[in-house]
Amino acid sequence: MTGQKKVGVIGLGSMGYGIATSIFRAGHTVWGFDVAEAQVEKFTAAGGKSGDLVDEAQHFDIAVVVVLNASQTEAVLFGENGCVPKMKPGTAIISCATVAPQFARDMAERCKQYGVFYLDAPISGGSIKAAEGRLSVMASGLPETFQIAKPALDAMAETVFELGEDVGSGSAMKAVNQLLAGIHIASMAEALTFGITQGITPDKIVEVISQCAGTSWMFENRAPHVVEGDYTPHSAIDIWPKDLGIVLDVARGARFSAPLTAAAMQQFLAASGSGLGHEDDAAVAKVYARNADITLPGDK
Amino acid sequence: MTGQKKVGVIGLGSMGYGIATSIFRAGHTVWGFDVAEAQVEKFTAAGGKSGDLVDEAQHFDIAVVVVLNASQTEAVLFGENGCVPKMKPGTAIISCATVAPQFARDMAERCKQYGVFYLDAPISGGSIKAAEGRLSVMASGLPETFQIAKPALDAMAETVFELGEDVGSGSAMKAVNQLLAGIHIASMAEALTFGITQGITPDKIVEVISQCAGTSWMFENRAPHVVEGDYTPHSAIDIWPKDLGIVLDVARGARFSAPLTAAAMQQFLAASGSGLGHEDDAAVAKVYARNADITLPGDK
Repeated sequence: MTGQKKVGVIGLGSMGYGIATSIFRAGHTVWGFDVAEAQVEKFTAAGGKSGDLVDEAQHFDIAVVVVLNASQTEAVLFGENGCVPKMKPGTAIISCATVAPQFARDMAERCKQYGVFYLDAPISGGSIKAAEGRLSVMASGLPETFQIAKPALDAMAETVFELGEDVGSGSAMKAVNQLLAGIHIASMAEALTFGITQGITPDKIVEVISQCAGTSWMFENRAPHVVEGDYTPHSAIDIWPKDLGIVLDVARGARFSAPLTAAAMQQFLAASGSGLGHEDDAAVAKVYARNADITLPGDK
Repeated sequence: MTGQKKVGVIGLGSMGYGIATSIFRAGHTVWGFDVAEAQVEKFTAAGGKSGDLVDEAQHFDIAVVVVLNASQTEAVLFGENGCVPKMKPGTAIISCATVAPQFARDMAERCKQYGVFYLDAPISGGSIKAAEGRLSVMASGLPETFQIAKPALDAMAETVFELGEDVGSGSAMKAVNQLLAGIHIASMAEALTFGITQGITPDKIVEVISQCAGTSWMFENRAPHVVEGDYTPHSAIDIWPKDLGIVLDVARGARFSAPLTAAAMQQFLAASGSGLGHEDDAAVAKVYARNADITLPGDK
């Protein structure tokens, strides 16, 4: 196949596995790596390759890094078994974890010393869109980086927002999105539980508010979880202490006062601290319900 | 005309004037009342009637009360020149101001003593939809009240959410909507200004976030005002200390902890306190910008 690329996908969790299979489906040769052996076996059974990351890194045209956070990103790129020093110059890295903009700039600078191109490329859309190759990517980096990364981006994303040459702009936009998304999930929970104290039911609130000026993407997506009493973790509470933590750290660095983000953070911390960390993030409603001694749908 | 009703509209501000003309356009006889003579003259020039509220009240089948708040509502219904004691039994009142649920229940109880039916009917949609007869109404009251009020509701509203017999449920739903809407306007401002500190521009943020999970109805409606630097007050800052004040008062009464609402309230108070009360509510972004020493579009 013309244009077939050699692509390593590092991290085969719910997002990474979907990305790896989407790129494979597009006809490229894909290596998958994960500390969880079962995920690697599943991927190789589906036709993907694997091996030792340090040994295989030299083959890659593109590497997609889909790990949890900054420290894992740094470890797979530059740690004891880091892959960047083994890559051939001209390889492009698509780095998808939600990180601080300055961290992304640091990584790009270190990659440059090896002739490796770094795309600051946080993703949005969830595991279903990842599996379908229909993610949104908020990307920044050099034009050459975009050009080298394009075959993988085309396979994994429906929309690539090109945010300029400055590495860090992708992560900054992701932080803006997470600031809003986190606040809107908490405000959904605050609104539903406040309504319950006034005798109106969550299902009625969802029906009405979805058609009114108070609605948000997160309200429409998450409020039904509360109505159904279903906290299967499509996106877990524990995402938010991490992601709003990044927003608040970056804000503090800029001497930026972010009172709504800070208030939302406290609610997610209370949720995580009280044992709800692995539940769906709509479970932040349980913090409000407990504090007001009210019953949510599904409560026994 | 069959079904022609006699309707009084009390309050001819930006919402009330649109409601009065919408009901008039539907073929009913409409009296308009306002303390601002110019609004009354405009309405009578357009074919409406007017006069002294106390004298005319006996003629009404329906009265729509579109004043600013609870104290004005109480004054026009039961004050020195209040209209309810002059109404014939069986008249329906459509009460549109944003008020606390308990206030609505009190008004309904007092109306009942005169055989007058009270519909708790806060509105949403803004002055353009008011003029087009396309408002949303969050309404609760007795089935007979809905039946009597129907011709006016049909003329003024595109959507009437029927929230049951309990007067107060309409106001409770409006409070839920305002809780969310107020938080989402403040979060829009927090997000845009945070993004500016990280070197990304408001127009780019609007372009990207509108397509991402961080979006909200208010983000998409208000963020463009910040991008354009246009703070013409379609909906003013000073709405929010009033409406979030109702939410927080009701919440306190229910011993309900509402940390995001409280945080948003502080930002609107800072906006109002620093002289922005009559600007568009998107001007809450100026509070953030001042605190972070950053420049917004349109700043000189």
